[in-house]
Amino acid sequence: MIDLAGIKCAPCREDAPLATQAETEKYMQQLPEWKIGERDGIKRLTRIYNFNNFTEAMSFSNKIAVIAEEENHHPALVTEWGKVTVSWWSHIIKGLHLNDFVMAAKTEELFKKH
Amino acid sequence: MIDLAGIKCAPCREDAPLATQAETEKYMQQLPEWKIGERDGIKRLTRIYNFNNFTEAMSFSNKIAVIAEEENHHPALVTEWGKVTVSWWSHIIKGLHLNDFVMAAKTEELFKKH
Repeated sequence: MIDLAGIKCAPCREDAPLATQAETEKYMQQLPEWKIGERDGIKRLTRIYNFNNFTEAMSFSNKIAVIAEEENHHPALVTEWGKVTVSWWSHIIKGLHLNDFVMAAKTEELFKKH
Repeated sequence: MIDLAGIKCAPCREDAPLATQAETEKYMQQLPEWKIGERDGIKRLTRIYNFNNFTEAMSFSNKIAVIAEEENHHPALVTEWGKVTVSWWSHIIKGLHLNDFVMAAKTEELFKKH
């Protein structure tokens, strides 16, 4: 099985393919804590992480920001007291690309180390 | 006129008063860029700030996190590429307290210095 967390993000162009239903199901097996939602008609991959206070939540958001810069793929991070809601999607193709599942898997690895 | 940005947040207890309509209108005169919205039936004070990239947005979110800790009053910060959406409200009284207008004014000051 493909190890999502070990993959580098590919540069994502306008003609890059959205993940198919079969691919999505395959990738989601590695991301049991994540949910696919929709906002403004665009699918997003989302997970809520819980923490003990605001500072810990912010610290986790900052760690995600580092990998986002490294991979040049950026999430929406909702940082609140005791909670970070992470959403990944590919703006340019208005939906989910392999890159988003890769970043979700990398986020999981960050959380395990946090 | 009261200088919102110069006030310290008061500890907010369950029996603290929500801002009245008259108070809200008075405070909002100092916060022309802010909007009052509602989520899950709870009023929030919100503003979107724009930046050149993700790193600048994250940097601003971190500055807000510092004043949030100082005042022990915490927002929801949505950090995205080139954008931070800041929302202040008082969880414990399920709405807007003077503290929220104070924190919005302090956020404005941070942005001017950013």
